[in-house]
Amino acid sequence: MSDDATAFVPGHVTGFFSAHPADDPAVAGSRGAGLTLSHGVTVTVEPAPETTVSLDGEAVEMPPVADVLRALGVTAAVDAESDLPLGAGFGVSGAMALGTALAANALYSCGRSENELVTLAHVAEVRAGTGLGDVVAQARGGMPVRVEPGAPEYGRMDGIPARPEIEYVAFGGLSTADVLSGDTSALTAAGETALEELRAEPTLDRFIAESRRFARDAGLLTDRVETAIDDVRAAGGDGSMAMLGETVFAVGSGLSDAGYDPERCRVHPAGATLRSE
Amino acid sequence: MSDDATAFVPGHVTGFFSAHPADDPAVAGSRGAGLTLSHGVTVTVEPAPETTVSLDGEAVEMPPVADVLRALGVTAAVDAESDLPLGAGFGVSGAMALGTALAANALYSCGRSENELVTLAHVAEVRAGTGLGDVVAQARGGMPVRVEPGAPEYGRMDGIPARPEIEYVAFGGLSTADVLSGDTSALTAAGETALEELRAEPTLDRFIAESRRFARDAGLLTDRVETAIDDVRAAGGDGSMAMLGETVFAVGSGLSDAGYDPERCRVHPAGATLRSE
Repeated sequence: MSDDATAFVPGHVTGFFSAHPADDPAVAGSRGAGLTLSHGVTVTVEPAPETTVSLDGEAVEMPPVADVLRALGVTAAVDAESDLPLGAGFGVSGAMALGTALAANALYSCGRSENELVTLAHVAEVRAGTGLGDVVAQARGGMPVRVEPGAPEYGRMDGIPARPEIEYVAFGGLSTADVLSGDTSALTAAGETALEELRAEPTLDRFIAESRRFARDAGLLTDRVETAIDDVRAAGGDGSMAMLGETVFAVGSGLSDAGYDPERCRVHPAGATLRSE
Repeated sequence: MSDDATAFVPGHVTGFFSAHPADDPAVAGSRGAGLTLSHGVTVTVEPAPETTVSLDGEAVEMPPVADVLRALGVTAAVDAESDLPLGAGFGVSGAMALGTALAANALYSCGRSENELVTLAHVAEVRAGTGLGDVVAQARGGMPVRVEPGAPEYGRMDGIPARPEIEYVAFGGLSTADVLSGDTSALTAAGETALEELRAEPTLDRFIAESRRFARDAGLLTDRVETAIDDVRAAGGDGSMAMLGETVFAVGSGLSDAGYDPERCRVHPAGATLRSE
């Protein structure tokens, strides 16, 4: 057993989605599409007699992380460093759950496969109500399309073959749990339409256009987000809203060109991975 | 339309496999496990009135590449640069087919999804008889386990969560087409057993051990390969044979420690990807 193990998990921004609850959390999930980001979460796991979790040096309550460790039958000190804000639609909680699964499995030689580890993290996120599709997307990398919902045994993924630079501005958080626990029927209808359109034309431009339409039709746009998207488009760029956060993402230099002061990263080519030994 | 487009595809070494032919080449494939390598093939596609293919500056006949371009309805000049020898079990032909699919789709805005592009390359490889499982493994990255054979619509993948350094020595080639066109029943029985054992314990060590057993039981070991594997093990390391080439791979510094002069790389964290725009 090594002294610690580390995994990197890309951030994930969902552009549109439909919610597919189910009694079995491995079957539950979302359909939709998004982009994984080169900005992400680095999770280091060390042996400890009692589980503790920190994010950027601060102790945090993170039920999915504790749930993953319980499922593996271990305790550990989990330290996460994130490039991304929490609760703003970047999948930070999913990244912490998945990074913990990968790193703890390596540290304690638990002998699980990648699909098994992704399933543990997905199930923990669904149980906590903090996400439905981030974990499977973060496991895949690129621009993931969730064709069928659920953990790897049940779900099905495709991808958009594009690797653009991305800018983003996070104005604040939206509660994933609040949105997902409300009436999701309008949202799901808009998400299903967007997915059908994207699958007929799986390109970056179509993804952004369908994401914008979804944000509007699902009634999730806030004033600040709507203004920023309009500004990006007026400057000749394209962007949309991260689901679920008060966050705007744009292709290339779209937000800079519109006079914002965004973070810059890229679509990440890889899924979550252990740091090389 | 840009002037050119480039994709990188990791090399892929199969440790063990079973062959699953089918009338539909998208259904045909192999089950088994392997490792993708940070050494791979960089494919650049430029518009051209007639399709030409070169590998490391030399014109080559590469039927799967031509087949992929035909399926996309385009012609192009395809230039591949490879870190890896051709015909020695590294999946170079699969990499060229998959890299061509990704790059030509981007260059000509063909609007295919990643699964569709992987399927085109997989079908082209199966038709040419040059491979059954490299393309889907190269599309995934990491240490891919082919749980069910075939293109993404039919197959199912898992992975071993390990990212070790890898050394390899290529003594020479074996003809994939010759082996696959012969009686594959002993090979397939050995491959099925190995997969079952690996799925019960999806670890790097088990992968190497099952690969060694497969190479022996399938009757594919050559004298040079057997000697090199014995040398690696005598020096305290572990390794096996690349299917299908007269190639030995070892974990960490296994071949160096045994006195060989190997190439060094890593398990690659990502699948095939367009170079960022």
